[in-house]
Amino acid sequence: MNLAQINDLVLVISPEEKRYMTRLTPRQQLHTHLGFLAHDALIGQTYGSVVLTHLKHPFILLQPSTFDLVMHVKRISQIVYPKEIGYILLRMNIVPGTRVVEAGTGSGGLTLAMARAVRPTGRIYTYEERDDMRAIAQKNLERAGGLDGIEMKARDIREGFDERDADALFLDVREPWLFLAQARAALKGGGFFGSLVPTTNQLSDLLQELETQRGWTDIEVVEILMRHYKPVAERLRPEDRMIAHTGFLLFARKVAMQVDKPVVESGNEGNEGNEQTSEGG
Amino acid sequence: MNLAQINDLVLVISPEEKRYMTRLTPRQQLHTHLGFLAHDALIGQTYGSVVLTHLKHPFILLQPSTFDLVMHVKRISQIVYPKEIGYILLRMNIVPGTRVVEAGTGSGGLTLAMARAVRPTGRIYTYEERDDMRAIAQKNLERAGGLDGIEMKARDIREGFDERDADALFLDVREPWLFLAQARAALKGGGFFGSLVPTTNQLSDLLQELETQRGWTDIEVVEILMRHYKPVAERLRPEDRMIAHTGFLLFARKVAMQVDKPVVESGNEGNEGNEQTSEGG
Amino acid sequence: MNLAQINDLVLVISPEEKRYMTRLTPRQQLHTHLGFLAHDALIGQTYGSVVLTHLKHPFILLQPSTFDLVMHVKRISQIVYPKEIGYILLRMNIVPGTRVVEAGTGSGGLTLAMARAVRPTGRIYTYEERDDMRAIAQKNLERAGGLDGIEMKARDIREGFDERDADALFLDVREPWLFLAQARAALKGGGFFGSLVPTTNQLSDLLQELETQRGWTDIEVVEILMRHYKPVAERLRPEDRMIAHTGFLLFARKVAMQVDKPVVESGNEGNEGNEQTSEGG
Amino acid sequence: MNLAQINDLVLVISPEEKRYMTRLTPRQQLHTHLGFLAHDALIGQTYGSVVLTHLKHPFILLQPSTFDLVMHVKRISQIVYPKEIGYILLRMNIVPGTRVVEAGTGSGGLTLAMARAVRPTGRIYTYEERDDMRAIAQKNLERAGGLDGIEMKARDIREGFDERDADALFLDVREPWLFLAQARAALKGGGFFGSLVPTTNQLSDLLQELETQRGWTDIEVVEILMRHYKPVAERLRPEDRMIAHTGFLLFARKVAMQVDKPVVESGNEGNEGNEQTSEGG
Repeated sequence: MNLAQINDLVLVISPEEKRYMTRLTPRQQLHTHLGFLAHDALIGQTYGSVVLTHLKHPFILLQPSTFDLVMHVKRISQIVYPKEIGYILLRMNIVPGTRVVEAGTGSGGLTLAMARAVRPTGRIYTYEERDDMRAIAQKNLERAGGLDGIEMKARDIREGFDERDADALFLDVREPWLFLAQARAALKGGGFFGSLVPTTNQLSDLLQELETQRGWTDIEVVEILMRHYKPVAERLRPEDRMIAHTGFLLFARKVAMQVDKPVVESGNEGNEGNEQTSEGG
Repeated sequence: MNLAQINDLVLVISPEEKRYMTRLTPRQQLHTHLGFLAHDALIGQTYGSVVLTHLKHPFILLQPSTFDLVMHVKRISQIVYPKEIGYILLRMNIVPGTRVVEAGTGSGGLTLAMARAVRPTGRIYTYEERDDMRAIAQKNLERAGGLDGIEMKARDIREGFDERDADALFLDVREPWLFLAQARAALKGGGFFGSLVPTTNQLSDLLQELETQRGWTDIEVVEILMRHYKPVAERLRPEDRMIAHTGFLLFARKVAMQVDKPVVESGNEGNEGNEQTSEGG
Repeated sequence: MNLAQINDLVLVISPEEKRYMTRLTPRQQLHTHLGFLAHDALIGQTYGSVVLTHLKHPFILLQPSTFDLVMHVKRISQIVYPKEIGYILLRMNIVPGTRVVEAGTGSGGLTLAMARAVRPTGRIYTYEERDDMRAIAQKNLERAGGLDGIEMKARDIREGFDERDADALFLDVREPWLFLAQARAALKGGGFFGSLVPTTNQLSDLLQELETQRGWTDIEVVEILMRHYKPVAERLRPEDRMIAHTGFLLFARKVAMQVDKPVVESGNEGNEGNEQTSEGG
Repeated sequence: MNLAQINDLVLVISPEEKRYMTRLTPRQQLHTHLGFLAHDALIGQTYGSVVLTHLKHPFILLQPSTFDLVMHVKRISQIVYPKEIGYILLRMNIVPGTRVVEAGTGSGGLTLAMARAVRPTGRIYTYEERDDMRAIAQKNLERAGGLDGIEMKARDIREGFDERDADALFLDVREPWLFLAQARAALKGGGFFGSLVPTTNQLSDLLQELETQRGWTDIEVVEILMRHYKPVAERLRPEDRMIAHTGFLLFARKVAMQVDKPVVESGNEGNEGNEQTSEGG
């Protein structure tokens, strides 16, 4: 059940919490700073168990979580961090079955987390203009288990997105305000828009465009700070240093269209039940 | 497709972002501070569209997200907030198909978010000793769409959990350190343990017990701070006040058992490939 | 020595830490929510001692600190908070003997703290255009012990400041970037400039003007967050809520002038090595 | 006036904000990574002016502030940072003329800041048991301008402090709760107690002892976070990293003694004026 098998992607953690990730392949070895582990010795082991390197150092054998996979992504750009990813998934309702558009793909970390959250019936459409980034992202996604449920696209998003009625759309690009109209076109009514920008100037520009366009509701601008503690019972204290900033998150939901007449006729106030039925059809 | 239908749970947002949630039922009305909305007028409307109260105030009709549902939960206890929930789901790998144990159920907010994340094949086993809490939670979960994938249990968890090989287990109880052995018994090797405690004294006690028990790895202690900004382009600034504290999060993964022999025999160091195959079976 | 005397400004703190401030005047009474205290009964008491209201509730009699006085200021505008004041005083080297220019005076809280820090030989020159603000500030300063060392001025600072060679200058105005040239004219070489602005847009404008003007060094932009804890040994935890934002602080020091010649005589430019060597010996 | 003179302690800042501090001495040179500056060329220069190294790199010549001196202290222990020092000085009312007791001296950074704040009539009594620390602190204080107003003491504070009726007392020691009685003995009624501890366990211990002893009021526990911004107008954003923790600050004021009789006799409630006068004498 819970046994490491050939072709599994595994995580091993050293006594000092150094992490290694590899895909189990017969006759291969994983080299660590404390000796090597033979893949063949790992295959068939229970996950969570202790395995010893040839120098007898105890490592823990684990299945990598989405979190581990995201942290393990090879980066050539600033990645979206787990502290933001968790909130993005929850805030944009990225749950099993949803269809999500993303631009740019970047290193693919957020793509990966989203794809794992929408399985098995959802789908991630991810746009990236730069060939080098797309290549990195593809490699990262393949290493993490493949592109099931992910469509990578090379489009310049100025031309718009292919999708319509998407449940959610996330922009991690330098000038997200240039693509708000395209984002609106791709989203369903009530669909979730999200964006991450590092500077306050970008945030002001994005807010300005949201105000100009109208047609957005439930706007939230937020930053998330995470403070780690040294996990020592009798000398409990925060770590000395922390990440002070990755970016500002902005969320909004698409308003479908401007209404031109009230759904309740003014003359019918005492009699809504009937009237509404006829109107609501 | 994206139309409000009878029996849908809907969210309507007022011009000043006041929120109302209701289940669409023919002939009923939703009363707001700016007039009422007839359910019959909402049924058949496109989600994301503007609807007018009988006093002509424009509201937006939306499908509630998991986030909205969590925030809408009726509370008789401190709830776990979205800023924590998002990270919990990601950090504990609560993705489609996983089996999660939770205690206590509390108001059911985290239960709800977890259930939505593991669909359609996963399952949440949630324990709550107090009858009043369980009643509230059940009502909250039913209001939010039912208990599909959720099993509520009345057990005192001192006696242990029914489950074995759970993927993840979360303790939101006053003295989580008392139930670590029970948690270990319920988790699979490498399974995720999480807990939320409000005081540093509780955190020290929990860390102390983790150290004493051994058999845990990848320990992380963290607090999450969220700072909102007023979404105004030309006067951008953080809100005046923020939540300073809800609780400290602790995460760990279960180490399956202590190993008594190295997985690599010392005599075989030059020849791992073959040997490992025979051992690894 | 440490006895409350007629005309002293005193602070009394109730059992639940409610604070009252009054100036001791024979035959007067201080009315609290737990009964009254006769001033005559306070006069002659040792500071720090317990005094009982006529309903027998124990209050503590204290001399107000600068901190207490600042917090007690009557406000008709946003005040500068102690968390910022402490850092401003230290960062701008506002120590005994320094001459400081300030605009606007606002409610006078920062003025008061600066005046107490520069005594007995320093001086605070504080500008405020609005008559109502100046009246409030004057009242606040008089209540707190008088205007010794403080000069209040009604000038519109667009016309510049009267002072030259000031040690430090602080702008707490809506558009500080409009007055940077005036600030430079008032400051001595190496003098400290500081400003507090609530929005990121103002901060960008101020930074833009600093970059344009040149002639500033040691620029620092910072925000200060303060998190309080409930002071309970066995249930230690941060307070639930905190101030998320008062403003962004910017500091810089004035560069005296652009140099047109090296401090090594121009005639020696081709020959510094020798000169320096002979000098450096 | 504002001219650098022989024997002045000066700060020079490089184009990239690297800082050098030195005392001006004829015929000496200050060596920087961008060439040297002859002290003789600096003597007589206006503070705030640009000075060129022999390689023609422009540096700014400044008088170091208290802040600069604190940051420049040679450390063999964790120092108290300016973000805490500013608040300590304000919160503990360390203004011109006050008498402050401190233990331990550590590297002398806080000692130095306090000494500069209480001039010319105040006094700092600083205790340090360790000879090596005391030597470092003395060297740091001498480099920064001497020990005027500072008394260094080698006492083990378990034996108590020499001072009585001190205005303020600060404990920066590992187990401050062991010395609370000694602190009380040294403080005047209403005097300010402060302490800095890095762990929550220490904070709980200190709070426990404060509760046990009684006789303290106006207790505040607080931590101060400082977030720096990159000072770039058009790409404004916080720095990537920040100090997450230096320590928890605790403040309290000494209650002089337990009262045994009400200051208002119960029979005199209608007649306070006269009674109080007789009592208050």
